[in-house]
Amino acid sequence: MQLRKKILVVNPNSNETVTRNISDALQPFSYVGDFEVDCVTLAGGPYGIETQADSDSVVMPLRRLVAADNSADAFVIACYSDPGVHVCREATRRPVFGIAEAGVLSALARGERFGVIAIAKRSIRRHLRNLRQLCLMDRLAGERSLDMSVAETASSDGALARMVKIGIELRDEDAADVIVIGCAGMSRHRAALEDALGVPVIDPTQAAVTMAIGALMFQ
Amino acid sequence: MQLRKKILVVNPNSNETVTRNISDALQPFSYVGDFEVDCVTLAGGPYGIETQADSDSVVMPLRRLVAADNSADAFVIACYSDPGVHVCREATRRPVFGIAEAGVLSALARGERFGVIAIAKRSIRRHLRNLRQLCLMDRLAGERSLDMSVAETASSDGALARMVKIGIELRDEDAADVIVIGCAGMSRHRAALEDALGVPVIDPTQAAVTMAIGALMFQ
Amino acid sequence: MQLRKKILVVNPNSNETVTRNISDALQPFSYVGDFEVDCVTLAGGPYGIETQADSDSVVMPLRRLVAADNSADAFVIACYSDPGVHVCREATRRPVFGIAEAGVLSALARGERFGVIAIAKRSIRRHLRNLRQLCLMDRLAGERSLDMSVAETASSDGALARMVKIGIELRDEDAADVIVIGCAGMSRHRAALEDALGVPVIDPTQAAVTMAIGALMFQ
Amino acid sequence: MQLRKKILVVNPNSNETVTRNISDALQPFSYVGDFEVDCVTLAGGPYGIETQADSDSVVMPLRRLVAADNSADAFVIACYSDPGVHVCREATRRPVFGIAEAGVLSALARGERFGVIAIAKRSIRRHLRNLRQLCLMDRLAGERSLDMSVAETASSDGALARMVKIGIELRDEDAADVIVIGCAGMSRHRAALEDALGVPVIDPTQAAVTMAIGALMFQ
Amino acid sequence: MQLRKKILVVNPNSNETVTRNISDALQPFSYVGDFEVDCVTLAGGPYGIETQADSDSVVMPLRRLVAADNSADAFVIACYSDPGVHVCREATRRPVFGIAEAGVLSALARGERFGVIAIAKRSIRRHLRNLRQLCLMDRLAGERSLDMSVAETASSDGALARMVKIGIELRDEDAADVIVIGCAGMSRHRAALEDALGVPVIDPTQAAVTMAIGALMFQ
Amino acid sequence: MQLRKKILVVNPNSNETVTRNISDALQPFSYVGDFEVDCVTLAGGPYGIETQADSDSVVMPLRRLVAADNSADAFVIACYSDPGVHVCREATRRPVFGIAEAGVLSALARGERFGVIAIAKRSIRRHLRNLRQLCLMDRLAGERSLDMSVAETASSDGALARMVKIGIELRDEDAADVIVIGCAGMSRHRAALEDALGVPVIDPTQAAVTMAIGALMFQ
Repeated sequence: MQLRKKILVVNPNSNETVTRNISDALQPFSYVGDFEVDCVTLAGGPYGIETQADSDSVVMPLRRLVAADNSADAFVIACYSDPGVHVCREATRRPVFGIAEAGVLSALARGERFGVIAIAKRSIRRHLRNLRQLCLMDRLAGERSLDMSVAETASSDGALARMVKIGIELRDEDAADVIVIGCAGMSRHRAALEDALGVPVIDPTQAAVTMAIGALMFQ
Repeated sequence: MQLRKKILVVNPNSNETVTRNISDALQPFSYVGDFEVDCVTLAGGPYGIETQADSDSVVMPLRRLVAADNSADAFVIACYSDPGVHVCREATRRPVFGIAEAGVLSALARGERFGVIAIAKRSIRRHLRNLRQLCLMDRLAGERSLDMSVAETASSDGALARMVKIGIELRDEDAADVIVIGCAGMSRHRAALEDALGVPVIDPTQAAVTMAIGALMFQ
Repeated sequence: MQLRKKILVVNPNSNETVTRNISDALQPFSYVGDFEVDCVTLAGGPYGIETQADSDSVVMPLRRLVAADNSADAFVIACYSDPGVHVCREATRRPVFGIAEAGVLSALARGERFGVIAIAKRSIRRHLRNLRQLCLMDRLAGERSLDMSVAETASSDGALARMVKIGIELRDEDAADVIVIGCAGMSRHRAALEDALGVPVIDPTQAAVTMAIGALMFQ
Repeated sequence: MQLRKKILVVNPNSNETVTRNISDALQPFSYVGDFEVDCVTLAGGPYGIETQADSDSVVMPLRRLVAADNSADAFVIACYSDPGVHVCREATRRPVFGIAEAGVLSALARGERFGVIAIAKRSIRRHLRNLRQLCLMDRLAGERSLDMSVAETASSDGALARMVKIGIELRDEDAADVIVIGCAGMSRHRAALEDALGVPVIDPTQAAVTMAIGALMFQ
Repeated sequence: MQLRKKILVVNPNSNETVTRNISDALQPFSYVGDFEVDCVTLAGGPYGIETQADSDSVVMPLRRLVAADNSADAFVIACYSDPGVHVCREATRRPVFGIAEAGVLSALARGERFGVIAIAKRSIRRHLRNLRQLCLMDRLAGERSLDMSVAETASSDGALARMVKIGIELRDEDAADVIVIGCAGMSRHRAALEDALGVPVIDPTQAAVTMAIGALMFQ
Repeated sequence: MQLRKKILVVNPNSNETVTRNISDALQPFSYVGDFEVDCVTLAGGPYGIETQADSDSVVMPLRRLVAADNSADAFVIACYSDPGVHVCREATRRPVFGIAEAGVLSALARGERFGVIAIAKRSIRRHLRNLRQLCLMDRLAGERSLDMSVAETASSDGALARMVKIGIELRDEDAADVIVIGCAGMSRHRAALEDALGVPVIDPTQAAVTMAIGALMFQ
């Protein structure tokens, strides 16, 4: 009998709505026979990860969660700043995926130049530091911001319209031919955004869970 | 009722044993409820893809196969030279994945520097041209060759031993902490090689099929 | 007695007017005592090379032409997508030059940053893939398109005016100080364009034939 | 009357001997009239910073220290992993310097290619991630490790001899013409190492304090 | 008794006003007990360094000055084209700093992306060649010109206003978060420019003298 | 009647034997009907260009020669350090070629990775600075030195044997598939070296004169 393998997706902010959104966006994986995808909220995280302090504050808690966990076969850190990816990898031999890393790598298989939609301007430098560290800048078309709060993107009906507007700028002014959503909580707009833009749109959490499945499937 | 989605994996050489090896290596995907992974041999391909002429000769036949196909939802070109990837993408809006591209992108989520095991020295320059075009050279630790013929690797009992030897060189002399198998036909050695080396080993065909599933799952 | 050396310039599209234009543009080489420059049209090529399929479709025919030829001492592939350059180099030890490669390399000796005038937007990504593979992106100022069909550029009186307009954009907005004509068939406008722009303008076919002469002259 | 400006140098590990070594190495700054250089030990830090967890564990404590401090005019984080540099910069408008960053930038003004002496192999990947993020890899000659524990380097008489041996390898095998000491606690060997190698040797803490003085002097 | 160490700052143009400006800008170093900073005008230099010929004409005179000098412990070449830096380094084992190099390296410790304010457009290509040689292009936000003569910047009351305007363009359009003044003679505007822009502004001569002090302090 | 165009090749060292060697190596150009290639020795140059001072000392004399010359249509500076190329380009609108630049650019059309044979180790850093400034490092396989004096290479019978030895190291250890001779005076060994190595060998002076002919032919 083959045991189900478990992928633990950790939302490092304490906003349960975001965790639920992530969980909903990963629903299609429940059809995948061998895998169980669990989404959890990191206890004690900030309500949203907007500043460097927000991002850095969850690093050690993420490591403790990973080190203490005995049930998961792989981990996904569901924040586009990839907090704690390296320290979690040090804590376990099980695969650990950051969603920014996985999202961009997946985008590079779908287009020549990728554009990123950030929620807020202040996050862009942090994202670029991550891309520079990953040596994945050469095919970056650009990163542009919605200039909304996380709360606004989570609830506002206007979020999709704003994403389409920014996506068009990335496509037409920056020459992006694939778009990465630079946030864990906007997955539900992926398909509509792709339809509106006519180029592939990558949800980074889905990309990371996909990579986790690939890593576990053949062991 | 949800229809099964089909991923067509094309072996561009005419060696049916290779196609069978690929098919076997993708067996675990048969547990994935919604997907069907079909492996086919490209009619009229060379017996192995060793030279630039071998690789270039399958480009237009691959395009014709893709353009004529009405049943697949995504395509994987199962040759580590990624022949025809761009012309096939031009021929369809359905996703097309090259295994070298997918293998390296997947490796970059598992380690800092990747090493590649090629079958023959003469392929290395061709692979490097592809990596340069993809802007994925910066974290390449090195590519080293088994110096075997495709036929030898397919049958020889010594293939794994040779892969372990080259993998150790990549790991210890070139400082690779993740290894990509630079060939479509050696998947069956992936797990053993990973055990021997103690670092993740990526089979590029499995990586590409995984990415195809990710691209289709959320549509 | 010193034998004349022959450079075979192959126009891979089947448009004889283009071949004639190329031949005219290479007229000055007929004053070069030791060399014979022959321009031929590739049998069976597409009428123009505009798509990836057009470009890939001539690769194996070019290889066959090169492999079958016993008279030429060097080859020039006169298409700015450099189709078949690598497979032709595999087929012969005689030098093979692609005009994009030769044009850009020659431009780099004449200015700090080069701009490229493409005929159509859809070709730009293909050209950039070639530049990335060649590691020649760092001094690219930009590539801009005339947005004309090959037919239009071949006949229209307005072609030069349009080239001047785009050239000025490359020079003044993108800070190019040398311009490469991104097409084999516009050589006759080179001198006028250079006069209008006040910066060197490189015709890539002339650049490639020049390099071929250099390669043969000292053997 | 001109007030003295204060530079706070924080040793993020809890090893008071290291803090004392740092303080001794910065003695010459006490002759600099306008400046006061204070060295403190971060309360609650690990005994040495060897792992990613060690490094990440001090990030938020460093931020709190910086945010709570009202007396310093500039900060130096005296650990070659540059922990917390970005989050501290977010917490204050006063300048914050990481010693790895400052050490490498200073080395680039003294030679063409820099080599780094690390204490332990496991730190090298972490250091390289920092260099990649900083886009300072192109002139890296190499990083080599002493393979000693922090404790051993602090006390052992053999530390200098080992540093000379590794420095010679960096100079002669990797073609480095300037050396950076990849640790905060080995400053006392700088001059002797420079004499032995005949190329400039940069102590990163001294480099960072120097930059801090430059930043404050002209305000 | 500890002897004072001397840093010789050479203004390679023959404009004594510039030398005086430099000297004034370095006044704060006179509070630094152990150091003496002397500013001299290179005999026979051009009145301003605006062209490549101006810059190249001072190279060998700078070498002769350095080779003939027995009193200085370190040298700063106070021209943003860094003329003669390498040949002076060949002529002495004492440290030699170019102000462009030192200014950019110092800026990289204060922000993620640096912008440069040049006096005249024609200097920008020369500056960029220097940055390319230094491998310091990756974090360049942009270089923009005041379009003034050196004489105008030296005397005009409008210089600061113009610097603020260009600085705002670098900050807001090019996303620079640190600014380098691309000239030796505008130091007196540094503080006001920093106040106006709200991001660090680096005076390159002050940066170079700071590095020189760091290099000498610990010998 | 078509006037002959003149290419002036300037040997910046004062060694007439080198000028004669260069002149002999360019003999085949005398068969080229429209062109006259004149080789001259720069008055007052050093006997050989080995140091940075040697190289920098000829910069302004080269500019004066170019500015004073009314008869040449293009200039080639026949020293592998490319001294004065930029200042000469400022002095005239006629094309100016440096042989290092032209040699490397020509090599990039003949192979994937180029190796350079230097005469002496001390020149390698200077050559690499030039390559970095030109952004042509990415396909450099390596540069290795003969460790001979210019005088030795000029006369010694052993020079070719030594070049073959170093060329084999570049080809087999550094994976170069095209070799550039890093000196103006070794042209006479080009053909023999190419025969011995089995890969293209580029003489940089011949490459530069070829580019000059290409630049003039179509005016």
